[in-house]
Amino acid sequence: MAPARQIHQLLGEFKMQHGALWDACIAYETWGQLNYQKDNAVLLFTGLSPSAHAASSTLDPSSGWWEQMLGKGKPIDTDKYFVICVNSLGSCFGSTGPASINPQTNTIYGLDFPVLTIEDIAIGGQAVIESLGITQLHAVIGASMGGMTAIAHSILYPDVAESLVSISGTARAQPFSIAIRSVQREMIRSDPIWNNGSYDSPPSMGLRLARKLGMLSYRSAAEFEQRFGRELVPEERQTGDTFGIDFEVESYLDAHANKFIGTFDANSYLYLSRAMDLFDVADHGGSVSHGLARVGARKAMVIGVETDLLFPIQQQREIAQGLDNGEREVEFHALPSLQGHDAFLVDMDRFRPLLCDFFNCAMNQPGQLHSI
Amino acid sequence: MAPARQIHQLLGEFKMQHGALWDACIAYETWGQLNYQKDNAVLLFTGLSPSAHAASSTLDPSSGWWEQMLGKGKPIDTDKYFVICVNSLGSCFGSTGPASINPQTNTIYGLDFPVLTIEDIAIGGQAVIESLGITQLHAVIGASMGGMTAIAHSILYPDVAESLVSISGTARAQPFSIAIRSVQREMIRSDPIWNNGSYDSPPSMGLRLARKLGMLSYRSAAEFEQRFGRELVPEERQTGDTFGIDFEVESYLDAHANKFIGTFDANSYLYLSRAMDLFDVADHGGSVSHGLARVGARKAMVIGVETDLLFPIQQQREIAQGLDNGEREVEFHALPSLQGHDAFLVDMDRFRPLLCDFFNCAMNQPGQLHSI
Repeated sequence: MAPARQIHQLLGEFKMQHGALWDACIAYETWGQLNYQKDNAVLLFTGLSPSAHAASSTLDPSSGWWEQMLGKGKPIDTDKYFVICVNSLGSCFGSTGPASINPQTNTIYGLDFPVLTIEDIAIGGQAVIESLGITQLHAVIGASMGGMTAIAHSILYPDVAESLVSISGTARAQPFSIAIRSVQREMIRSDPIWNNGSYDSPPSMGLRLARKLGMLSYRSAAEFEQRFGRELVPEERQTGDTFGIDFEVESYLDAHANKFIGTFDANSYLYLSRAMDLFDVADHGGSVSHGLARVGARKAMVIGVETDLLFPIQQQREIAQGLDNGEREVEFHALPSLQGHDAFLVDMDRFRPLLCDFFNCAMNQPGQLHSI
Repeated sequence: MAPARQIHQLLGEFKMQHGALWDACIAYETWGQLNYQKDNAVLLFTGLSPSAHAASSTLDPSSGWWEQMLGKGKPIDTDKYFVICVNSLGSCFGSTGPASINPQTNTIYGLDFPVLTIEDIAIGGQAVIESLGITQLHAVIGASMGGMTAIAHSILYPDVAESLVSISGTARAQPFSIAIRSVQREMIRSDPIWNNGSYDSPPSMGLRLARKLGMLSYRSAAEFEQRFGRELVPEERQTGDTFGIDFEVESYLDAHANKFIGTFDANSYLYLSRAMDLFDVADHGGSVSHGLARVGARKAMVIGVETDLLFPIQQQREIAQGLDNGEREVEFHALPSLQGHDAFLVDMDRFRPLLCDFFNCAMNQPGQLHSI
């Protein structure tokens, strides 16, 4: 087990929107210290594929998925905040998911795992902070699927988080994104090894294809043009196969897919992917605007990226407009990053100052602003 | 055999850029009559998947893939023009492709088919018009891969076509499109039925996935939003399967895939797809602008669509700018169609007037302009 990982066990029945689990676990990591007033906690939800290891720590010095954003002296400064990142329910990095053993049957859940929703993931995160004695959050924050989860959390627990940060999330999945995810799921389900969800070894072919399509939807044509152009891989790496990996952009996709297939459970992928399709803030109040009106946070920051194919900028605007009820303090940033949906992971020069501002980080103190 | 289909056989050796074929065939259809001066011929190249059946005729009254654009009284008026549409070399609708028998070995080519290029397809088209006694073309025209082929034809045979129409084509494949096609090819190649190109029955799973990803790249998020929103299929069509076809957009993709898998040869798909990746006008003259400078047509129309993901509008602008050498008459149209790359097949209200104008159709005569 990853050394910094902690587990909160939900003893007994954990009711989901479409079923229930028994003795389910939610894995999480924390950074910093909860202060005496217990008002400095930040709850971080992740996108589809990361674990709770968002940043390095003494217990686990390996780099986390948001290493540059989270830590001592970073924009979300763990000298100041107590940050909790949860591994989503349904995932495969310590939280209960379809690859877990069902304690009632002593068999792997597989497709017996209940249909998962973003709300279920938000409820799992809330259970973790309650177990830590936290009743108030300074902020709930997430990007991509994590943005959706942060919004769901703010609707379900309007009194808990004082502020909300949604990055490249959405109030509801658009049909184009549903279609992309549907094809990804079909890739996995078409792999004979997947075997209707009961596999002994990973359905690598399906996962590989799904990840490659994922990378296409996470980035942008403009970035690929700039990074790869029509460059070929060096001759010694060319396969001689007519349909092999000859262009650098093909090699890039292949490298990402290779990293992914050994680490992520195929059924988890299916469940989390479908959860995104199903999410619709309109389920809370009859319309997106009524749903967003239920968000309790008094302050919100919504960040989107103009080149995002998967969670397009109009959807970010929709969130910001829905949150802006005249009472809530809402800031909206449409960033011109080239990196599309993934920009929050890589375009630190644009994201860092916004997060730093919102979390009032030390870099923002007078005299230090330009010394970054 | 389709009743209007004609075959031109290239007797003996047909040299390709990367190999040769023996006694290869190019299938084509024609509409209208070649006039006495032999100066009213229009050569039409297709996208990746269509046959030469671009429009209905007496011999074959079934609708063609560009039925609304081509025919008597249509924008490309076959009362006026003699139109020849060729099935691309490498395809599977009468032209020699990887599914054909190699007459030298009496076995199916399969992956022994030489690497195919867009230039090879253009040369095949030229062979057809020469066999018909045509030395001059009023125009060479194509959309998508056909646009690339029309450009290649105008470079290889600068004295043949008086005018060039490129619709949603490109002077060279961008890495994002290469990446999409690379994933599509991998889908086909990953299907165990494909069997390294030697299959008895079609690798339907791979073709199905490739077509679905194709549909995603051919359309736009904005169109899907408008057409499908988050609509579910009617309850009686829902599968009850957690990962089944529940959203209308999923059902749409499935219907398109079902239509495709029975008709298109998997190896043809691979070869034509790779040919698009390999195409680069810069191979003719050292740079895109030098390559385009070799185009012989004295007049050109370049049409692109602002929502096109696969052949983005900047690439259309690049073609128009490259063609605009101060001597050539060049018109460029950036259309705001919602339908992305496929708009030329469906957004007739925007495309019809442009083609009508360019081909000086009857609808364009005084008094008739507003009566369409």
